[in-house]
Order: sequence, then structure tokens, then C-alpha cells
Amino acid sequence: MAKSISGPEIEKLIQLLARVPGLGPRSARRAALHMIKKKDQLLGPLSEAMAEAHEKVTVCLRCGNVDTADPCSICTDTRRDSSVIIVVEDVADLWALERAAAMNCTYHVLGGTLSPLDGIGPDDLNIKTLVDRVSNGGIKELVIAVNATVEGQTTAHYITDQLDGFDVSITRLAHGVPVGGELDYLDEGTLTAALRSRTKL
Amino acid sequence: MAKSISGPEIEKLIQLLARVPGLGPRSARRAALHMIKKKDQLLGPLSEAMAEAHEKVTVCLRCGNVDTADPCSICTDTRRDSSVIIVVEDVADLWALERAAAMNCTYHVLGGTLSPLDGIGPDDLNIKTLVDRVSNGGIKELVIAVNATVEGQTTAHYITDQLDGFDVSITRLAHGVPVGGELDYLDEGTLTAALRSRTKL
Repeated sequence: MAKSISGPEIEKLIQLLARVPGLGPRSARRAALHMIKKKDQLLGPLSEAMAEAHEKVTVCLRCGNVDTADPCSICTDTRRDSSVIIVVEDVADLWALERAAAMNCTYHVLGGTLSPLDGIGPDDLNIKTLVDRVSNGGIKELVIAVNATVEGQTTAHYITDQLDGFDVSITRLAHGVPVGGELDYLDEGTLTAALRSRTKL
Repeated sequence: MAKSISGPEIEKLIQLLARVPGLGPRSARRAALHMIKKKDQLLGPLSEAMAEAHEKVTVCLRCGNVDTADPCSICTDTRRDSSVIIVVEDVADLWALERAAAMNCTYHVLGGTLSPLDGIGPDDLNIKTLVDRVSNGGIKELVIAVNATVEGQTTAHYITDQLDGFDVSITRLAHGVPVGGELDYLDEGTLTAALRSRTKL
């Protein structure tokens, strides 16, 4: 779209919106137009919410979670079992596990996985801080909840090696059939894992 | 997601993002997290762009386009043929036609179509301002570029009736086969229209 039809401000808004994951150039235009039409209900509040988040959001130095407080609300929540740490790759995984609400414990966000091809080594991830947390004592269990990918599993093994000698139980998520999933659509690896880990009815 | 895991500011940002067309609750979370990670490259600039758009964007009183100037950049562009007006339903249609860049003329945004079922009558659309523009003189042609829906066609007929007696040529977009389209996938109405309006090779 030429600059001359709607002013540089709208054009800039569309360009920035197109960089938001989930929005492409076309949907960014649609989103911008919708926001402009709902100027006071959406554009204004959203601009303020973003400015506030930009100003206040920080990364928890202890666990790597994003929050407006450091240490974050999870680390400072006394109702949580701080002797159990779930280790995740990304904050999105932390959010997903919190939505499941299956365990009331703390987290450690690695910030990615080991990937020599992409030049991501142990020093690029929050692994040292994890070892520090464990060596400070008081940790009974570490649940390694990284993705079931090659990189995720490599990272899991590396962490296990680093924690060799500490008196901490290291567990991983179970493999198996997703709840609600159909066997016919599952890969052989998952089916094999589900069979091997079969439980009594 | 409970409030206690990432602060009310992030929660509010996600809730507002979920109201942007093209983003649902899940992609709003993803978008928020991406923005937070790209705090200074995306979250900050986007917040500023939105604040600027919120402050400056206005509706052109002459043609109904949104712009940061009133009259808008299109109405004040002296290189455009102001004797031709393309009448569209929405600003998004104006943008689409500008991208096609087939005609260098002016526009009139109706802001919707007549729809008695939804309680939208002539007074809810920018029809009076269109008649005013025509009666002020200097307009040779009006291209009615409303959608090819029942409401769009009703609106087109209403506008034609209102402009009865003015010395202005009223045209509409051609019906036919979309460029790059396959006949097999087209409906009978479009094929009939394309056959009737066939042109010499």
C-alpha cells in the first residue's frame, strides 16, 4: 500500500503488527483496521497495556519466568512446594503446565535446548542457575519436562549429567497415548512407549 | 491462567490481544510471549505506534476513509482524478483497490450496506454525503464497487435511485471469472455472468 492513502502512522502500525506471530501482512491490515474502528475500546487500552508490560515485565533471575516482579510470583508463592522443580524449555511450556494445574510446585525455564548446529551450548541456557538451585539444597525432585524432540532429550541428558552426585530425584514426563487421542493416528514410537509403560486397570 | 503466575499486566495484555481479529486466546498468549521476548524491538515500538495511531487517526469527513489527516491524503492528492469516485463498503475495500492500483481516482466509503434485518438504514451509511458530493458538481463517474452480495446489490440500487436526475455516469464492477481461477470451482451464477459478458479475443 502506498504511503499516500492512509498516513505513515497507520502504515507503521500495520508493519509492526505483521511481525506478531499469528498475524501475516493481510491479517495485520485487518487487525489494524479493526483496532482503528474500535479506537477507544481496543487501540487505546492495548497501547496502554503494552506500554505497561514494556515498562514492568522482567525475567525472574531465579527461575527464568517472565513476570512483573523478580523473584516472580511463582517463586515467592509460599503455598507452592518449592522442593519440586519442573524444568521446561520455554515460558510457554510453564504456562501450559500451569493451565493443567496438576502440580503445585516451582519451575525452571531453560530458555531453549542444546543445539550445536544452531550454536546453542550449555552457557546459552539457564543450566548453571539450575545447578546452583539444586546445590543450594532443599530440592527433592526435578521433573524434566522438555519437549520429546532430539534436542530436548539431549538437553535432558546433559542436565542429568550435571546433577550427578546431588541427592535429588530426577524424573521425566511419561510417554503414552494423549488423552482423547486415537490409536490409529499415533506413530509407532508413541504406541511402543505406551505399551511398555502399560499400567494395571 | 491464574493471576498469580505472571502478573496482572501480562494477563491484561493477553486478554486484549485475544480481541484482535485473527488472534484467539491461544495465539494471543503466543503473541504476548513473543512481544515480551522482543521487548525493545516489538513491544515498545508497537505500543508507541498504537498510541500515535490512537491520537492521530481520524475519519475523512468528505469520503469516510481513515487517515491521520482530514480531508484524507486521497481527497487532497491533486494527481488523482477527482471526477471519478469509487464507492466501497469499507476502508478495507478501499485499501484492496488501492493495492490493485488500476485507477487513480477518489473514493467514498459507505461504512456498510443497507440491511433492514440488522436495523441498518440509509441514515446509518455515508449515503447523504455521497449525494452531496455529486450535487456539488464536478463528478463524471461513480463506480459502485460494493460486494456482490444481496445487501451490496440492494445498496447499489438505492444509491442509483438517489442519484436519479444527476448528470453522472454510474457503473459497477464487472462480473466474471477471477484471474487465475479454474472454471470447475466456480458457481453457475459467475459462469453465466462471464459467458454473457464475453469479450472478443
